[in-house]
Amino acid sequence: MGLTIGVDIGGTKIAAGVVDEEGTILDTCKVPTPPTPEGVIDAIADAVRTVSTDHQVEAVGIGAAGYVDNKRATVLFAPNINWRHETLKDKVEQRVGLPVVVENDANAAAWGEYRFGAGQGHDDVVCITLGTGLGGGIIIGGRLHRGRFGVAGEFGHIRVVPDGLLCGCGSQGCWEQYASGRALVRYARQRAAATPDAAKILLGLGDGTPETIEGKHISEAARQGDPVAVDSFRELARWAGAGLADLASLFDPSAFIVGGGVSDEGDLVLDPIRKSFRRWLVGGRWRPHAQVLAAQLGGKAGLVGAADLARQG
Amino acid sequence: MGLTIGVDIGGTKIAAGVVDEEGTILDTCKVPTPPTPEGVIDAIADAVRTVSTDHQVEAVGIGAAGYVDNKRATVLFAPNINWRHETLKDKVEQRVGLPVVVENDANAAAWGEYRFGAGQGHDDVVCITLGTGLGGGIIIGGRLHRGRFGVAGEFGHIRVVPDGLLCGCGSQGCWEQYASGRALVRYARQRAAATPDAAKILLGLGDGTPETIEGKHISEAARQGDPVAVDSFRELARWAGAGLADLASLFDPSAFIVGGGVSDEGDLVLDPIRKSFRRWLVGGRWRPHAQVLAAQLGGKAGLVGAADLARQG
Amino acid sequence: MGLTIGVDIGGTKIAAGVVDEEGTILDTCKVPTPPTPEGVIDAIADAVRTVSTDHQVEAVGIGAAGYVDNKRATVLFAPNINWRHETLKDKVEQRVGLPVVVENDANAAAWGEYRFGAGQGHDDVVCITLGTGLGGGIIIGGRLHRGRFGVAGEFGHIRVVPDGLLCGCGSQGCWEQYASGRALVRYARQRAAATPDAAKILLGLGDGTPETIEGKHISEAARQGDPVAVDSFRELARWAGAGLADLASLFDPSAFIVGGGVSDEGDLVLDPIRKSFRRWLVGGRWRPHAQVLAAQLGGKAGLVGAADLARQG
Amino acid sequence: MGLTIGVDIGGTKIAAGVVDEEGTILDTCKVPTPPTPEGVIDAIADAVRTVSTDHQVEAVGIGAAGYVDNKRATVLFAPNINWRHETLKDKVEQRVGLPVVVENDANAAAWGEYRFGAGQGHDDVVCITLGTGLGGGIIIGGRLHRGRFGVAGEFGHIRVVPDGLLCGCGSQGCWEQYASGRALVRYARQRAAATPDAAKILLGLGDGTPETIEGKHISEAARQGDPVAVDSFRELARWAGAGLADLASLFDPSAFIVGGGVSDEGDLVLDPIRKSFRRWLVGGRWRPHAQVLAAQLGGKAGLVGAADLARQG
Repeated sequence: MGLTIGVDIGGTKIAAGVVDEEGTILDTCKVPTPPTPEGVIDAIADAVRTVSTDHQVEAVGIGAAGYVDNKRATVLFAPNINWRHETLKDKVEQRVGLPVVVENDANAAAWGEYRFGAGQGHDDVVCITLGTGLGGGIIIGGRLHRGRFGVAGEFGHIRVVPDGLLCGCGSQGCWEQYASGRALVRYARQRAAATPDAAKILLGLGDGTPETIEGKHISEAARQGDPVAVDSFRELARWAGAGLADLASLFDPSAFIVGGGVSDEGDLVLDPIRKSFRRWLVGGRWRPHAQVLAAQLGGKAGLVGAADLARQG
Repeated sequence: MGLTIGVDIGGTKIAAGVVDEEGTILDTCKVPTPPTPEGVIDAIADAVRTVSTDHQVEAVGIGAAGYVDNKRATVLFAPNINWRHETLKDKVEQRVGLPVVVENDANAAAWGEYRFGAGQGHDDVVCITLGTGLGGGIIIGGRLHRGRFGVAGEFGHIRVVPDGLLCGCGSQGCWEQYASGRALVRYARQRAAATPDAAKILLGLGDGTPETIEGKHISEAARQGDPVAVDSFRELARWAGAGLADLASLFDPSAFIVGGGVSDEGDLVLDPIRKSFRRWLVGGRWRPHAQVLAAQLGGKAGLVGAADLARQG
Repeated sequence: MGLTIGVDIGGTKIAAGVVDEEGTILDTCKVPTPPTPEGVIDAIADAVRTVSTDHQVEAVGIGAAGYVDNKRATVLFAPNINWRHETLKDKVEQRVGLPVVVENDANAAAWGEYRFGAGQGHDDVVCITLGTGLGGGIIIGGRLHRGRFGVAGEFGHIRVVPDGLLCGCGSQGCWEQYASGRALVRYARQRAAATPDAAKILLGLGDGTPETIEGKHISEAARQGDPVAVDSFRELARWAGAGLADLASLFDPSAFIVGGGVSDEGDLVLDPIRKSFRRWLVGGRWRPHAQVLAAQLGGKAGLVGAADLARQG
Repeated sequence: MGLTIGVDIGGTKIAAGVVDEEGTILDTCKVPTPPTPEGVIDAIADAVRTVSTDHQVEAVGIGAAGYVDNKRATVLFAPNINWRHETLKDKVEQRVGLPVVVENDANAAAWGEYRFGAGQGHDDVVCITLGTGLGGGIIIGGRLHRGRFGVAGEFGHIRVVPDGLLCGCGSQGCWEQYASGRALVRYARQRAAATPDAAKILLGLGDGTPETIEGKHISEAARQGDPVAVDSFRELARWAGAGLADLASLFDPSAFIVGGGVSDEGDLVLDPIRKSFRRWLVGGRWRPHAQVLAAQLGGKAGLVGAADLARQG
C-alpha cells in the first residue's frame, strides 16, 4: 500500500496529513474543531477530502481521545467530544469513500514513535504521553497491544495514590493527576503561593500571582534556575519515574518513550525521570534496565502513527 | 510431542510430575527442598529421573520463583534460594539428558490455568496468585508475555501506596504487602489486637493472642461469621480488586484469574474482590467488563503449566 | 454578669440569641446573611439590637468561621465572607454600644458543649464538628485553647493523606476532605455510580442519578439498610475515628465530642467512629481510653458558647 | 526550693545530675542501664545517691520513655524496659528518701528547652525530638501539657501515611517512621542501593555497601555535598516540616523547637524543615508564622527538665 491519511483530533484543531511508507508527511491541512459531535465528523471528512486532492491515497487512520472498540470502528466514549458509542468508522467511510480505521490517539502516537521515531529498533516499547493529561501506548512483539475490548494502555488512570486527588474520570489518585502538564502547573502554583520568595523568577513571568502561572512560565523559569520551577519539574519527574518503574514490573519493555508537551523540555525533565525510574525500579540490581527515551516526532506522532496503522489494515 | 515433565520448586518441597497433552498428571514425586543452591539442582535432577522411569518423556519445564532471563535458561535472581545468575537450564540438562526450559513460577501457573483451567476459551488473560506473596502472569493473544528481559508480570511489586509498607524487595508500598496471604494475617492480627471483643471466634481458634492467628484460623472464623475475620478478608479484597482495576486499564484482558491459597476460599474472597474491582474500574460504564474468575487447578497449576510450556519448546 | 448575647454567622442566616448563665436561650432572631462584608456587620448589629430590646444584656459574643486573632477582636481571614483583617469587634461595638468578643465558630460551639452539653464534668475535651467541613475546638484544664495567634484547633486542615484530595484551603489531603458532610456525599455518589445495583434504595430517593444524591438521602437510605449508604457512613467513620486516635496521641483528653450535622444520625455514625477510634488508638492496651460522645446542643452550640465566652470576658 | 536531681534513663546509660534553679548542672554521674526492670530501679537509686552525696537536694525528677500516668508516679508502659504499670515513684522514693516525680522523657526535654534553652521567652511551645524515634512535648501558657491520662504529646505515633510503614507500636504510617534518625538511615540506604553512582561519598564512608550506612555517615557525606545524603536529609525534612504544619493547625504555638540527634546538624536540616513547614502551613498568608528553632541544650535537655519539674512539685 502506498499513501495513507492520518487524522489527529485535538481539542481546538483537527489535523489531517498524507503520509508515505517512511512516515514522511507530504501534505497537511488543519481545521478548527467544531463544537458538536456531528460537526466533528463532517470536519474530519472535509479535511480528508482537502488533503487528498493531490494524492492517490488508499486508507484513513483517525486518532481520537477516548475508548475505541477493538474493531477499531466505534468510539465507546470520548471525554472531550460528546461521543458515546459513535460509529465513527462507518460515518467517515460513507463521507470519504475510503477504508477507515479508528485508533485511540495515544496508541496512534505510540505507534508513530515505534515505527518512525524513538522506538525504531525496539520490539517491546511502552510510551507515555505527558500532555495536559497522561496517555499511553504499548507495543509488544512489534504489534500494538489494544486489549480484548480495545481499551488497553489507559495508563493515566491507574491509581497511584489511594484516596488521592479527584480525577475527571470520577476516580481518585489517578496517575495523570500527578504526572502531566496539568499536575506540573498545580505543583508550581502551590509552591509559589507557599514560598513566593523562592519563586521570584517564575512569578515575574506572569502577572505576579500564583494563579496565572502557566506551563510555559515554568519551563522558562526552570531554565533560568528558579528553585520553585525546578522543584516542580522534579516533583513531576518523581511521579513519572515511579510509574515507569511499575510499568517495567508489568510489561518489561526494552524501552520507554516519553512524549507529550512536557517532554519538549528534553533532559530538563527526562533526566530526573530517569533518576526516579532507577530509584523505584524493583530488583534493579538483578535485571537489565529499560532505556528511557525522549520522543522524536513531537506533535506529529499521532497523525503519522494513525496513517501507518491504516496502512497495515 | 507427547509427555513432558513439570517441576515446581517450593520453599519446603520440590514436586515433579509427568503431564500429558491434556494437562493430566500421570505420575508425581515430591522431595524436600535442600538448603543449598547446588543441592536444589541435584534434587530437581533426582526428582525428574525418579518420575520419568516409567514414562517416555521429551522435555522438562521448571517453574522457579524469581527473575528468569528471556532465554528461559538462567535464573537472574531468586528471592528464596540463593541463586544469582544461575544457569539452571544447562545444569539440569547435563544431569537429566532432556531439553529443559525454566519459567517464572507464577508465569507457569498462569499458563496452566490458561490452557487447562479457568482461562480456557480466553485469549487475553491476566492471572494473579494470592499466596504468601502476590505473583502474576499475562497471556496476550494466546501467548505468554515474558517481557523483553523475561521479567514481566511482577505484579506483586507495583507500588500501590507511596511511602507505604516496607517490602522484602527493598521498595515500599508494594501490592503484595496489601493483597496476599501475609497481608491477610497482618490485617487480622492488628484488628484482633485493637478490638478483641469483635474477634472472639477468631482468637478462640488459636491460643487467644493476636500473635498466633494464622491464615487457616481467619478462613474458619470468617465462615463462622467472626466480624474481624470477615473484615480482614474485605480489606484484602479491597486492595486486590483495586489492583485488578488498574490491570484492566493497562492490559484490558477478557478475564482475570485469581489463584493461590487465598483464593481457595472461593466466593468468600472472590465476591468482595469483584465488588472492589467494579468500584475502582475506570470508565466502567463505557466499556465491557472483564470477568473475575477463580482458578481451577489449585496448587497444581504451576507444575502443569511448566510441563506444557516445555512441550511448546 | 447576667444575660449575654450570642451571634452565629452562617452562610445563609445570622442568628442572635439572648442567653442566661445556665445556657438557656431566652430570645432569638434570625436574619438572612447579606452578600457584602460590610452588610454582614450591619446585619449583626441589627440582630443584636432586635434581640436585646426586651432584655438587660451585658456583652456580645460572635462566632465566625475563619481565623480570629488572639485578642478576639479581628477576623484575620474568613473563607466564606470576604473579611481580611476585619476589625469586627470595634465595628460592632460602635454600632451596638456593648462589649463584644469575636470567637472562631467551632471554638464557640466546643465551648457551648463543654459548658452546657456533652462535655459537662470533663476538664479536657476535644470537639470535632462534622458539618459541611470539619471544625474543631479544644478545652484544656477548663479553658478554651485558642493558641498563641488565635488559630489553634483548625483540625479540618491537618494532612491525613499525603498527595491527597485538593482542599479549598489550597493544600491537599486535609482531614475535612475525608471526614465531613461533603465527603459523605462524595463517597455515596462514587459508590452509587460504580455499583448502582447495590444503591437502589439510595438512588430511588433522588432522581435516580448519582449526581443528585444529597446528605439527607444517605441518612434515610442508611436507615433502610441500603448497602452503599451504610458503607458511605462507614468510610466517613473510618477517617473520623482514625483522626480522633491521632488527637488522643496529641491532646489526650478525657472525652471527645462529635457534633455537626453528620452527628445528628447518632449511633448510626457514632458507633463506627468509636470502632475506628479503638482500631487506630496507639497503645490502646496500656492507657485509659477517652470517651467518644455525641454532641447534645445541636445547631445551637455555637450561639450558646459565644454568649458564654462573652460573659467570661 | 534549691537543688534537685534530674535522671535520664537511656537505652545504654542512666544519667543523674544535680541541677540548680538556673538549670546549671553541678554534678553528674552515669551508670550502664541494667538489663532487668528491677535492676533499672536499683541503678536509678544508686545514681541518685552517688550524685547527691556532696549536695543538699530536695527532690528527684525522672525522665522515662513511655507512658507515665497523670499522677507522675506510675509508668504504664515503657517500650524499651519491660515496665508495665510500674510504680516507679514509690519504689525510688523508698530507696532514696526524697520526693520523686516521674515524667515522660520527651516532656522533660521539652520542659528543659522551654525553661533554659531555645524556648525562653515563649509561653506556647511545641517541641519535637528527632532521635532514633520521634518524641514530643507541649507547653501551653507556661505549663507542661500532660493530658488527662498523662499521655499527651505522643507525636511520633500520629498517622501521616494511611496504610504506611509498620511501626513498632503495632500501627502503620506513624510519623516517626518518616521523620527520625531511623528514617534518615532508611532513606539513605534505599537511595544508595538504587543509585550507587550518586552516593559515592556516602558509600565510601562505610564499607561500600548500603547496609552499613549509619547516621554519622549521612551527616558527614551531606556536608561534603553527596547528593544522596543531601536528598535523604531533604526527605526527612519534608516529613518533619509537614508534620509541624499540622501541629501549627492544632496547637498554634509561637515557636517550635526541634531537638534530638538529627537536629545537631543545625541548619543543614533545620533550613529544609523550615521550608517544608512554610510549604504546608495552611492559611500561611493570613496568620503569623511560628518560629522553628533549633534546640540548645542537646542531650542534657531531659535531665535538666526533669530536675526542674521536680522542683515545681
